[in-house]
Amino acid sequence: MNNLEGLAAWLRLTLIPGIGGETQRKLLAAFGLPEAVFSAGRLAARSVIGNRADLLFDFDPSEAVDRSLAWASQPDQHILTLADAAYPRTLLEIADPPSVLYVRGNAALLQQRGLAMVGSRNATPQGLQTAESFAKALAGKGLSIISGLALGIDAAAHRGALAAGGNTIAVIGTGADRLYPARNKELAMAIADQGAIVSEFPLGTPAIAANFPRRNRIISGLSCGVLVVEAAPESGSLITARLAGEQGREVFAIPGSIHSPVARGCHKLIKQGAKLVETAMDVLEELGNIAEPVTVTLPAAATEENVLLAALGHDPCSLDDLLERSRLSIEHLLTELLTLELAGLVATLPGNRYQRLN
Amino acid sequence: MNNLEGLAAWLRLTLIPGIGGETQRKLLAAFGLPEAVFSAGRLAARSVIGNRADLLFDFDPSEAVDRSLAWASQPDQHILTLADAAYPRTLLEIADPPSVLYVRGNAALLQQRGLAMVGSRNATPQGLQTAESFAKALAGKGLSIISGLALGIDAAAHRGALAAGGNTIAVIGTGADRLYPARNKELAMAIADQGAIVSEFPLGTPAIAANFPRRNRIISGLSCGVLVVEAAPESGSLITARLAGEQGREVFAIPGSIHSPVARGCHKLIKQGAKLVETAMDVLEELGNIAEPVTVTLPAAATEENVLLAALGHDPCSLDDLLERSRLSIEHLLTELLTLELAGLVATLPGNRYQRLN
Repeated sequence: MNNLEGLAAWLRLTLIPGIGGETQRKLLAAFGLPEAVFSAGRLAARSVIGNRADLLFDFDPSEAVDRSLAWASQPDQHILTLADAAYPRTLLEIADPPSVLYVRGNAALLQQRGLAMVGSRNATPQGLQTAESFAKALAGKGLSIISGLALGIDAAAHRGALAAGGNTIAVIGTGADRLYPARNKELAMAIADQGAIVSEFPLGTPAIAANFPRRNRIISGLSCGVLVVEAAPESGSLITARLAGEQGREVFAIPGSIHSPVARGCHKLIKQGAKLVETAMDVLEELGNIAEPVTVTLPAAATEENVLLAALGHDPCSLDDLLERSRLSIEHLLTELLTLELAGLVATLPGNRYQRLN
Repeated sequence: MNNLEGLAAWLRLTLIPGIGGETQRKLLAAFGLPEAVFSAGRLAARSVIGNRADLLFDFDPSEAVDRSLAWASQPDQHILTLADAAYPRTLLEIADPPSVLYVRGNAALLQQRGLAMVGSRNATPQGLQTAESFAKALAGKGLSIISGLALGIDAAAHRGALAAGGNTIAVIGTGADRLYPARNKELAMAIADQGAIVSEFPLGTPAIAANFPRRNRIISGLSCGVLVVEAAPESGSLITARLAGEQGREVFAIPGSIHSPVARGCHKLIKQGAKLVETAMDVLEELGNIAEPVTVTLPAAATEENVLLAALGHDPCSLDDLLERSRLSIEHLLTELLTLELAGLVATLPGNRYQRLN
């Protein structure tokens, strides 16, 4: 940051409790930069935002401002303001862009084309694998994968992008110096290292329920489209999808069994007009970004297992049929099946039947 | 049939090899009833259909005509012609209605409001259960369930309608006196008893591949909408759905996992504009036919099992969690789980986790 005083004024404006985003934008619209807001004085500010202007002059957030400046002086830690060239262009298009963004990692990523992937914290094993595969394929095609660092689909999407050596951005609902949930700490470190973690909330902000839906508008706002993988009908993912629609972003949803509660949110979106998506290619085609065919690859499995997977086919299959098709001994077959089951590639169905999961 | 001679002329017209439906309609348009075609004579007929008119006068199908008349004189066996008041009104709306229909069972059903349900012969167990549940619920609401008596989804749809004590119509691709496939013979008997079996093909017509797609236009034509349950992307069910669209019927499709090959046909239809359907109620609402809420009921299970099902919830659940939630002993729990698995209500997932299937 070249202009430390300017940045200090941005932080002062945004770190005063009771002065929210809308009020900040009113003041900026009236006076220009934050420095001008403070030099214009109490009376001038009152003419724009009424008595709340007193907060601007009676509350002194300088301790928090100094802490934030110190934080941003560390390597790979940045504070971007609406006035910065590095501030993401996509967010300037939305109705309520945050005045400042706290970024850990590569801030330049925020200017690249990104796709949001969101979904349930209570995803199924298959849903997690689907999210990871899609993220891998799409990140491999150069799209940044944007998500919310939550457990479940969010984490799987980030992981897929990282595994592809691609870009990923985590938009979080706590301060950028706080990581939530704790279980994703290692993942967060990898994202800060290879991608970017973004928050609009002041440093030190703990996990507060109300901040997460608000955070969702940044996830959709940064992206050119939102892909919902598994979601309950009343869930944060559907809020993100609705915000995406309002922001003019594409909405994509992956269907699932009508008996799966986490498919219902996706089905609701498709009924409302979201694009039904079966493959990563479907997304790329819709985004008009076709390069080469995308293949969602199976996790590597040993050759013998692949033979068994081929023998299984895609329909549920009885043990007897498998014995005949694979020409393995029963002991050998059961061992292989267990290996595949543990690898998440096969599930046992009622009546000793087996089904491929991919 | 009041006018046996008239019916004999309809049969004569339609039992001459080489005189197909389109030719029949040209002749009927020119001369009125079949009797008038034959009394008009060879030259007059030539002026309408060219040299093929000779077939009408050189070929004598009277043996087949007599056999058909004898067949139709038996109880619950009927031949309906385009000129009959009992001929289904819905088929008069389509471009290529059959000149005659052979019906076993209750011919009056053909005038009632019906929904076609079609899908894969290689359906999954879950798909079969879904088809049966939907058919049960929709037939319970007074819709006739129309399908093709094939193995898989077709049979499940017929069975569901029968189980609800509702109406069901099987449109078959063989002669009405031949039943195909043999495995569905018992089901066919029940349909002839409680519903109706319909064919446009002459008595004795064996199973010929080319006749089945042709038959599909009758399935969609008789119905106000077509519901596709599980279908491969290149399958007869999608032909039926396409014909339904061309005939101005609603097309409904039930989504499934993107990893299930038999969901791909349904997804293709939804991408093309078919209505995504999750419940029988979705279908009724779209057809503007709402009465009371429809509930697709679980197969009956003992009380203790229901407790366990409730403990399972709808997300995959570990054995440890189940132990804690159910407060059963491990032996007792495993026994109950096995019972539920055998009843098709629960599946084992990789890593000793369990999931409800409904």
